[in-house]
Amino acid sequence: MRHLLDTADLTRAEALAVLDTAEEMAAVNAREVKKLPSLRGRTVVNLFLEDSTRTRISFEAAAKRLFADVINFSAKGSSVSKGESLKDTVQTLEAIGADAIVMRHWSSGAAAQLAASGWVDSAVVNAGDGTHAHPTQALLDAFTLRHHLAAHDGVAPTGTDLTGMHVVIVGDILHSRVARSNVWLLTLLGARVTLAAPPTLLPVGVASWPARVTYSLDEALADAPDAVMMLRVQAERMGGAYFPSAGEYTRLWGLNPARFERLTRQSGSRLDTPLVMHPGPMNRGLEICDTAADSPQNTVLEQVANGVSVRMAVLHLVLNQDPALAPQEARP
Amino acid sequence: MRHLLDTADLTRAEALAVLDTAEEMAAVNAREVKKLPSLRGRTVVNLFLEDSTRTRISFEAAAKRLFADVINFSAKGSSVSKGESLKDTVQTLEAIGADAIVMRHWSSGAAAQLAASGWVDSAVVNAGDGTHAHPTQALLDAFTLRHHLAAHDGVAPTGTDLTGMHVVIVGDILHSRVARSNVWLLTLLGARVTLAAPPTLLPVGVASWPARVTYSLDEALADAPDAVMMLRVQAERMGGAYFPSAGEYTRLWGLNPARFERLTRQSGSRLDTPLVMHPGPMNRGLEICDTAADSPQNTVLEQVANGVSVRMAVLHLVLNQDPALAPQEARP
Amino acid sequence: MRHLLDTADLTRAEALAVLDTAEEMAAVNAREVKKLPSLRGRTVVNLFLEDSTRTRISFEAAAKRLFADVINFSAKGSSVSKGESLKDTVQTLEAIGADAIVMRHWSSGAAAQLAASGWVDSAVVNAGDGTHAHPTQALLDAFTLRHHLAAHDGVAPTGTDLTGMHVVIVGDILHSRVARSNVWLLTLLGARVTLAAPPTLLPVGVASWPARVTYSLDEALADAPDAVMMLRVQAERMGGAYFPSAGEYTRLWGLNPARFERLTRQSGSRLDTPLVMHPGPMNRGLEICDTAADSPQNTVLEQVANGVSVRMAVLHLVLNQDPALAPQEARP
Repeated sequence: MRHLLDTADLTRAEALAVLDTAEEMAAVNAREVKKLPSLRGRTVVNLFLEDSTRTRISFEAAAKRLFADVINFSAKGSSVSKGESLKDTVQTLEAIGADAIVMRHWSSGAAAQLAASGWVDSAVVNAGDGTHAHPTQALLDAFTLRHHLAAHDGVAPTGTDLTGMHVVIVGDILHSRVARSNVWLLTLLGARVTLAAPPTLLPVGVASWPARVTYSLDEALADAPDAVMMLRVQAERMGGAYFPSAGEYTRLWGLNPARFERLTRQSGSRLDTPLVMHPGPMNRGLEICDTAADSPQNTVLEQVANGVSVRMAVLHLVLNQDPALAPQEARP
Repeated sequence: MRHLLDTADLTRAEALAVLDTAEEMAAVNAREVKKLPSLRGRTVVNLFLEDSTRTRISFEAAAKRLFADVINFSAKGSSVSKGESLKDTVQTLEAIGADAIVMRHWSSGAAAQLAASGWVDSAVVNAGDGTHAHPTQALLDAFTLRHHLAAHDGVAPTGTDLTGMHVVIVGDILHSRVARSNVWLLTLLGARVTLAAPPTLLPVGVASWPARVTYSLDEALADAPDAVMMLRVQAERMGGAYFPSAGEYTRLWGLNPARFERLTRQSGSRLDTPLVMHPGPMNRGLEICDTAADSPQNTVLEQVANGVSVRMAVLHLVLNQDPALAPQEARP
Repeated sequence: MRHLLDTADLTRAEALAVLDTAEEMAAVNAREVKKLPSLRGRTVVNLFLEDSTRTRISFEAAAKRLFADVINFSAKGSSVSKGESLKDTVQTLEAIGADAIVMRHWSSGAAAQLAASGWVDSAVVNAGDGTHAHPTQALLDAFTLRHHLAAHDGVAPTGTDLTGMHVVIVGDILHSRVARSNVWLLTLLGARVTLAAPPTLLPVGVASWPARVTYSLDEALADAPDAVMMLRVQAERMGGAYFPSAGEYTRLWGLNPARFERLTRQSGSRLDTPLVMHPGPMNRGLEICDTAADSPQNTVLEQVANGVSVRMAVLHLVLNQDPALAPQEARP
């Protein structure tokens, strides 16, 4: 794998290669000494032009466990804030020694533009670009789902996919790179996806996505989901053009105690008990109630932990050609 | 030792175990290569919800010398500033891989709350919580005092305590977690403590503390102190409700040249010459004059250096069960 | 070498020792694993009291490649912003364990003051002080020039100097520590330097510098330069007291397509084709046009890459007495 830009670019074999490598990384993370000298002497730059402490420290922890040197670069106080072009910034970072550039950018398409530009030889890993894509989030979600499915079926997860699963994604689809990246990846791996959102929070053209759309959360929850992924409500969009008020949102689109209880009693899903997923941080009392947030079905912390394994796998695959860890199919 | 929350929780044996381990760490820090692979593959997160560059980089240096991976997390621009709960923040940090959470928090009791919550399995090290406690500061102060006493007596410090010493703590006791943590620890180790402060800067209930209280600095200095600990005056409290003006404070509560000279001529203390201590950073010309700040009796830089040794000891003890370095009594 | 404060302090032998050691570091940086255990167990503190992400991460990458522990300390939110003196700050950093202090300071002369003060035993490396000096920038510029000259002459660069080269420095000489440091270093190494700037952007006393001064860029470019170093225009000085407008500046002092084309057709220089240098970040369309910025003669990225090698050499020389890497002449 040369870069990781978008789940829509991945072949099924590539996606499975990331997940399978992440399983090996998860085994490393279960050891007393959680280190693997896969990136010794390599430099990973976290170029975060938009704040995101969680994603940044997840990549930082992943890179350090693989022995990489990590350099954090944020826009604030940097040459970027003085008007330097992205081209000059990334070429400078590569000249300083970056082997991989993990980029969070406010602009949709920035990572793909960088990878296509020829500006740098570095591997580019998209850590979120505008409202477009967040592929490592989708990969960690798929990893989490696959892990639960395999455990339920009593098999090892390596090599398996998500065939037969049904995932409901709820909330602000319009602004969510998490939703976009998940729709492509989950369906690529054989899952069925339903988007449940108010019309104001659905993007133009959603009809062409490989997902069913509904304006009723209750209807979606009645359709035997294996997992309900509650998207985060952005505070700055409350009470504005998208929905009338926080209370209204919670009533119609929140996973409240009553809905959570009905969900738990569901039957017909592949798993015995549907999972509650969230990309974090959760707005307790808004899109998710405490009961759901603190229930054993909630996978938010598993998702975070799996995120480190998935990011270790991605950094390993884009920077390393060691076939001992990375299956052949990982490199098209 | 599972956590380090407050010196008031420590048994004498535990306190001595930290100080004795810190002696071993100080020996490491005196070597050409100041490294000990005690925390290889472990991750220490500095969760600083209140700015404190000094304390943060002291813990960072300590953790790195023990080979830990260090992740710095500050409130600014993070999910915490977006309203995430402490529970969700620390669980996320643990999911990312934190083995120890070093927390500075604006709220008194936050560290104890976290340790008692069951939210995480990580070791919790209190790096200062509100006006409540700052145990590593008190431990480094005790380490510094013990070192001087042992040197004066011509013995090795390991295993010894502070019996017979008299420490005067001066200034804003009311808001000082340093003073609180020192009162408990120094008396636990056999020292006698006097608090010298204006009535407006003493907390309600101070009469129940194991320390003598006086409203006269000069009286306290005349009572054969082995060390005078000058607390930092917080600029934002100047000229307000607590004392009339900076000049007034300096005149009544500052270690000015005349007081410092009288202190130096004192007799009757265990040490030949009383020490001048300060948690730093010093307000020169306010609570301490240049003569005292730059005198050989001033231990502020020793305290800083000892702080790294003490924090190495604390991180080692909470994260490591290797009996080679940590005496048995360290683990109740 | 005890400190690196200013190129004006360097002997020719010292300057060549840094450049020759940097050649060895460049060889390390060309390896698959770009690491050399020269500073294992040593701590480098980046004390940046003025924002400079590029220089900071260049030093950070350099120190990490040599296995040093790196601690970043910036003014914001630190004790410095609470009014702590420089003396107390640096003594605290040394007490925490700093072996070298890499300091960027807003005040001209700060690094020399620190080195002369006796406050610390740490090595002091000047990473830019006010408008005074930026020695590692000048050293990386000299390294870049020497590399091109040696390649042109078909010899190894080690031990050679810049005899016969002509370098034109263009723009805001008045505020430029880069220009000052280059004038001393380039002439020390045998090059001839011309300063081309409007009278408002030349310092008082420039007549005593070992450089020719001209108020015409075109005249300077006609004098067979081997390199043209375009200084960055500081946006905050635009349209103010120094020159009428950005358009005016570009017309008179910018390396526009016409000037770049004439420069390329120059003959008489030591090199076949003159180089275009820039300390970065470039203001495209202001002091430099895209054609020049993106031409093969532009060395801005080489300069950045060489900066890491030069900073590795400087840190190695000030912290290490290992004669295997550092020639004898490096230590006067």
